[in-house]
Amino acid sequence: MKVNGRHYRTIWTTTDGQVEVIDQTRLPFRFETVRLTTLVEAAHAIRTMVVRGAPLVGATGAYGLALALRADPTDGALDTAYQRLLATRPTAVNLRWALDRIRATVRHERTGRRAETAWVEAAAICDAEVQACHQIGQLGLAILRAVLAPNRVLNVITHCNAGWLACVDWGTALAPVYLAHDSGIPVHVWVGETRPRNQGASLTAFELGGHGVPHTVIADNAAGHLMRTGQVDLCLVGSDRVAANGDAANKIGTYPLALAARDNAIPFHVAVPSSSIDWRTPSGAQVPIEERSPAEVTMMTGRLPDGTLATVEISAPGSAAVNPAFDVTPAHLITGIITERGICPASAAGLRSLFPDESRKAPE
Amino acid sequence: MKVNGRHYRTIWTTTDGQVEVIDQTRLPFRFETVRLTTLVEAAHAIRTMVVRGAPLVGATGAYGLALALRADPTDGALDTAYQRLLATRPTAVNLRWALDRIRATVRHERTGRRAETAWVEAAAICDAEVQACHQIGQLGLAILRAVLAPNRVLNVITHCNAGWLACVDWGTALAPVYLAHDSGIPVHVWVGETRPRNQGASLTAFELGGHGVPHTVIADNAAGHLMRTGQVDLCLVGSDRVAANGDAANKIGTYPLALAARDNAIPFHVAVPSSSIDWRTPSGAQVPIEERSPAEVTMMTGRLPDGTLATVEISAPGSAAVNPAFDVTPAHLITGIITERGICPASAAGLRSLFPDESRKAPE
Repeated sequence: MKVNGRHYRTIWTTTDGQVEVIDQTRLPFRFETVRLTTLVEAAHAIRTMVVRGAPLVGATGAYGLALALRADPTDGALDTAYQRLLATRPTAVNLRWALDRIRATVRHERTGRRAETAWVEAAAICDAEVQACHQIGQLGLAILRAVLAPNRVLNVITHCNAGWLACVDWGTALAPVYLAHDSGIPVHVWVGETRPRNQGASLTAFELGGHGVPHTVIADNAAGHLMRTGQVDLCLVGSDRVAANGDAANKIGTYPLALAARDNAIPFHVAVPSSSIDWRTPSGAQVPIEERSPAEVTMMTGRLPDGTLATVEISAPGSAAVNPAFDVTPAHLITGIITERGICPASAAGLRSLFPDESRKAPE
Repeated sequence: MKVNGRHYRTIWTTTDGQVEVIDQTRLPFRFETVRLTTLVEAAHAIRTMVVRGAPLVGATGAYGLALALRADPTDGALDTAYQRLLATRPTAVNLRWALDRIRATVRHERTGRRAETAWVEAAAICDAEVQACHQIGQLGLAILRAVLAPNRVLNVITHCNAGWLACVDWGTALAPVYLAHDSGIPVHVWVGETRPRNQGASLTAFELGGHGVPHTVIADNAAGHLMRTGQVDLCLVGSDRVAANGDAANKIGTYPLALAARDNAIPFHVAVPSSSIDWRTPSGAQVPIEERSPAEVTMMTGRLPDGTLATVEISAPGSAAVNPAFDVTPAHLITGIITERGICPASAAGLRSLFPDESRKAPE
């Protein structure tokens, strides 16, 4: 997608063989890119959310492993790097999926070729994710068209950022929105700010604004009221891990959004590339929920009137805080799962129908 | 309740006949009081949320009318002041209730006595609200005792601030919590920060901390996850207006909290003095929902490391925001309504059973 008229992916390789990413902790106020030259830098970028979003975390992990192999291509180094990257963020399954794919590809290569092979495979992962997201966009567009009423704006609500910044390009939940907007459908997006890290207000609003898609930021608390008062037609969210039964782990606050959608008979769709489906996790109850720093709740970073960024304390001094970063939306609250292969019910049977080969791995 | 060891109400009169309040926009970082000497100052304090919380807004409105009558006791001035104060905040019914009570009391007085009569009546309103809140605390305590399990901490979740800062003293939803804590019940409160104005993180956490009640601040988004993972025993919230059918308007985000409680079979109680019950509003659909400034969503005020307060921009520049300040929780999601007269089902019949005289006013 475009930033100031220039096309960007969220992660790319430079002509001198380095990895570069957009520093998402600086958005929406600064557009800065940062180079990842070592395993340590890649792991740090994932943990501190310089890169975030399940597909992008996976892609960055893949390149992180390639960078590690460039420094040391031995089996020991491979395993150490794998574990180090896997430990950065526990909830999204894409990271494990991408690391597994790189490791399996290089495992039987001679050490002298491993770095190059990993590099090529990481690039293939990125290209495949872009293709999958574009396909999700095309399939999701049909859902938007089905909900569209004549002479009315179509009001979509989303949570967190499941746009191109969360992926390599296009996005998952937002891909259908971009395609709808581009094809002339009058679409408007309610953007939940997504406390505590505000990826909605800072990233989704930035993305949609950059592409010219009409949108309005709301406190997450307002979503239920907007639904009850008839101002929402459709919910579209991403997921960091869809379990084999269709339960979807996603940014904290997704589950209450799904409850409000159900209470108001509003369709609630989860859009994911197949790399976010975890065939080995039977249900959402087994998905590890990352606990992040309480400071993400008690402190807030923003822009002062003079243009500088500052972090302010916003909670009563001395009060403790906890910060679970994800929740699980049970499958029965999900209208459908949109993947690159098609749209299916959120159930084991539904997922199996789209991925008969993959789902055979489930008993592993 | 106590601040730094000294007992405070949220509103009081000084020995030289002025009204003084705690400036709640400065909490939790500064404890400052401010004098209200004119109608204009009282109206400004309500609109800018120097004072907030349905019962306190009512009490401040009552004193605002008394201050107006001190300057001009004529019928015309009375009606102008009534309208001016009523327009400050539309959702809480306590304001109209208190203004009606003052106006009815002074209407047939000769002008020379009106200011004094209003002053005495405003004080009576404050005393009655304190009494009602204490009674709510005693009645609500029975609910906490009923949920309490042996050798376990009782986990209550609340939203916004329905503590003593929202009232004249004691609070509504938090009154039972204070009494439980004081009587040795091991109670812990999950405090939803309550975006966009963060009254939970700034006021409820300040209050509970001041009284020594164990509590933990969370992003509002985390409430559903805590419920789904068995970490919440009871929801207690206040309300700015309970309609005659038991629907409850309260701070934005209360409705999704109630949905999550229902989905997890957790009792959800609404605590209000009878001044918050609007017998003339048949259901929540007729409650006017205040829209506040989008800047409350896109900007955030907090404390810089040097101790000064600063306001930072937290949303993508150029993105619009909307800010509905309240939502309506339908009666069927409410386990019970706790009033100073007793606890009743959230229904017309339930409310009538406690207030047979008041409810006769409903058809008005």
